Amino acid sequence: MEDRFEKGMKILNITNGEKIEEIFKDFEDIAPDLGRFIVEFPYSEIYTREEVDLKTRELCTVAALTCIGYAGSELKDHIGAALRVGNSPKEIVEIIMQMSAYAGFPAAINGMMIAKEVFKQQDLLPVK
Amino acid sequence: MEDRFEKGMKILNITNGEKIEEIFKDFEDIAPDLGRFIVEFPYSEIYTREEVDLKTRELCTVAALTCIGYAGSELKDHIGAALRVGNSPKEIVEIIMQMSAYAGFPAAINGMMIAKEVFKQQDLLPVK
Amino acid sequence: MEDRFEKGMKILNITNGEKIEEIFKDFEDIAPDLGRFIVEFPYSEIYTREEVDLKTRELCTVAALTCIGYAGSELKDHIGAALRVGNSPKEIVEIIMQMSAYAGFPAAINGMMIAKEVFKQQDLLPVK
Amino acid sequence: MEDRFEKGMKILNITNGEKIEEIFKDFEDIAPDLGRFIVEFPYSEIYTREEVDLKTRELCTVAALTCIGYAGSELKDHIGAALRVGNSPKEIVEIIMQMSAYAGFPAAINGMMIAKEVFKQQDLLPVK
Amino acid sequence: MEDRFEKGMKILNITNGEKIEEIFKDFEDIAPDLGRFIVEFPYSEIYTREEVDLKTRELCTVAALTCIGYAGSELKDHIGAALRVGNSPKEIVEIIMQMSAYAGFPAAINGMMIAKEVFKQQDLLPVK
Amino acid sequence: MEDRFEKGMKILNITNGEKIEEIFKDFEDIAPDLGRFIVEFPYSEIYTREEVDLKTRELCTVAALTCIGYAGSELKDHIGAALRVGNSPKEIVEIIMQMSAYAGFPAAINGMMIAKEVFKQQDLLPVK
Repeated sequence: MEDRFEKGMKILNITNGEKIEEIFKDFEDIAPDLGRFIVEFPYSEIYTREEVDLKTRELCTVAALTCIGYAGSELKDHIGAALRVGNSPKEIVEIIMQMSAYAGFPAAINGMMIAKEVFKQQDLLPVK
Repeated sequence: MEDRFEKGMKILNITNGEKIEEIFKDFEDIAPDLGRFIVEFPYSEIYTREEVDLKTRELCTVAALTCIGYAGSELKDHIGAALRVGNSPKEIVEIIMQMSAYAGFPAAINGMMIAKEVFKQQDLLPVK
Repeated sequence: MEDRFEKGMKILNITNGEKIEEIFKDFEDIAPDLGRFIVEFPYSEIYTREEVDLKTRELCTVAALTCIGYAGSELKDHIGAALRVGNSPKEIVEIIMQMSAYAGFPAAINGMMIAKEVFKQQDLLPVK
Repeated sequence: MEDRFEKGMKILNITNGEKIEEIFKDFEDIAPDLGRFIVEFPYSEIYTREEVDLKTRELCTVAALTCIGYAGSELKDHIGAALRVGNSPKEIVEIIMQMSAYAGFPAAINGMMIAKEVFKQQDLLPVK
Repeated sequence: MEDRFEKGMKILNITNGEKIEEIFKDFEDIAPDLGRFIVEFPYSEIYTREEVDLKTRELCTVAALTCIGYAGSELKDHIGAALRVGNSPKEIVEIIMQMSAYAGFPAAINGMMIAKEVFKQQDLLPVK
Repeated sequence: MEDRFEKGMKILNITNGEKIEEIFKDFEDIAPDLGRFIVEFPYSEIYTREEVDLKTRELCTVAALTCIGYAGSELKDHIGAALRVGNSPKEIVEIIMQMSAYAGFPAAINGMMIAKEVFKQQDLLPVK
C-alpha cells in the first residue's frame, strides 16, 4: 500500500511541484481518501507506465479536459503540469486549438483563456 | 392545476426550507413559468411518488448533478436538500466520491468542493 | 483568403456590433489564429449561407449553448447577438425554457440567469 | 388534468403524426407515467406557447439534440417532426451543419447521418 | 496488492454474479490492467466502504449513468447489479424517470429502454 | 480556396489513406459542404501546423473522442489514423486507459472496445 502511494507521489512531485500540498489540504476535513485515490490510481497506476512519456500524457490530458468543458480548475493544474514536464506554451496552445474541431469553439475558447491565465502567471506571454 | 402546484410546494418546503422564495424571485421578471414548471413537474409529479423516499431521491440527484459537471449552483441546493431530508454529510461525501469512477476525478473533485462549501456554512466540518 | 475573412467580419459586425474587437484582443498574445478561424469558419462559411436567416441561426445557437451547459460566456455573447438580429427577449426566453425538456432544468435555469444578465444590461427587464 | 394532457396530444398529433402511439407502447409495461409527463410537460406546457411557432421550436430542438450527441433516436423523431411542421430538408441540414462550430464535427456528422436516414425514408434525397 | 484485488472481487461477485468473467475476457488481449483497475479502484476502494450500502450505491450509479447518456452497456450492467443488491424494478424505474428533470427526457427515455431490456431478460415485465 | 482544400487533402491522405472517399460519399447527397469544411478547417488549417506533429495530434484526438463518449464512429477512424501516423497499439491503449481518470470508466471501457475492433481488423491483437 505504502509503495503504491509513494510511487504516485513521485510523479505528482514532478508534474505538480510544490502545489501538491494544496490538493491534500482541500480534501483534509471532508474526504481525505479522495486525495489518496488520486495519488494511488491515476498517478501511481497510470502515469508511471513507461509506454507513453509524461510529456505526451499531460498533453493528452489537456486535450481531454478542454473537451470536458466544465473542469476549468483541473485544466489549469494540468496546463501547469504540461509545462513542467516539457511541453512548450506553443504546443499546449496548438492542442487546445485543435479541440475546436472535436468539441466546438466554446470549449476551445474557454480552454485557451485558462491557458492564458497560467502563462501570464509564469510570464510566458506572448506565446511565439 | 392549483392542486398540482400545491403538492409540489409541499415537497419543496421539505427539501429547500426557507430558500424556496429565492427560486421564484430569480425568475419573476424573466420567466415566472419556469419556476412553476419546476414545482409542478419534478416536485409535484416525481418527488411525491412513494416508491422511493425523499432521502434516496435527493442522494441520487446529488450523484446526477456531480456527473453533469456544469450545474454547480443546482448541486449546492440539492446537497442542502439532501441534508434536510436525512442524509448525513458522510453519505453525501461517499456518493460524490463514487462518481469519480463514472464521470472522472474532475467531476468528483468539483462536487466535493461544493459539498465543502455547504457543510462549512452549516458548521458540519470536519466530516467524520 | 482575404475575401473569406472579410465575409465573416461582415456577419460579425451585424451579430456582435462593437464587441468584435474584444475577441481578437483576447487571443492576440496567445492564439491569434483561433480568432481568425472563428471569423473564417462559422461566420464566413456558415452564417453567410442564405437557406436560414441570421435570426433563426442565432436562436438555434442559443438553444445549443444552453444545452452544452459549460459555455456561459459564449451563451452571453450569442444572446446579445440573437437580440441584435431581431429576436425578442420573449423568444429567447421561450427557447431557453424549452431546453429544460432536452437537457434538464439545471441547463435551462443557468441559461435563463445568463439571459437575465444580458437583458438587465440592456434595460430589457421585465420581459413581457 | 385531462385538459393538460389533451392540449399536449394535439401538438403531438401535429409534430409526430401517426407515430405517437409508439411512444406510449414503449412505456406501457414499464413506466406509463413517463409517456404522460412528455405529453403534459414539454408538449402541453411549452410547445403550445405562442411566442415561438412550432417550426422554429422544432428546429431549435434539432440543434439541441445534435449537440447532446447521445440522443440519436430522439433526434430522428424530431427531424421528422421538424419536417412535418414546415422546415425544409435544407433548413435542417443547415442547422445541423452549424452545430459543428458549437459541439464539434463528430456531433454534426452524427446528426447529419441521422438526418440522411430520415430523408431517405421519406424520399427526400438528394437535398438541393 | 492481492488483498485489494480480492476485496474488489468479493463485491463484484455480489453485484455482477456470474457476469464478472466477461469483463476480464473483453480486456484480456488488449488491456488486462483496465480490468484490474476496475476491480481495485471502484469495487475495492469505494463499494466496500460501509457508510453507504450497496443497494443505495448501485441506485446512485444508475442515476449517474442515465445522465451520462452514452454509457448504455455500463448502464445495462448496473441495472442488473442494482436488482441483484435489492432494488426493485419499480425503484429503478423511479430513479431513471427522475433523471428527466436533471438531464432531460432523451437521457431518461434511453435509460428506460435499457431498463426494459434488462427486465425483459429477467422476466420482470410488466413493472407494477 | 483550391489551395486550402488541397493542403487538407494531403494530410487526410496521410491520416486516413484510402478511406477518405467514404467521408465524401456519405455527405454527397445531403451536405457536401460539410465534407469540404472538414478538409479545409481541421485538416488544412490545424493538422498542417508544424508546432505539433501528426503522431501527437492524432493521439490527443483519440484522448478527446474517448472522453466525448458518443463519437464511436469518429473515434474508430482516428484510432486508425493514429496507427497510420506512427502510434503503436500500446500507446493508443495507454491513452484510452488514462482517460478513465478524467471521464470515468464507462468512457474508457467504450473507447477500449472500439480500439479492439480496429486492432482486430488490422490483425494487431493481442497488444503486447
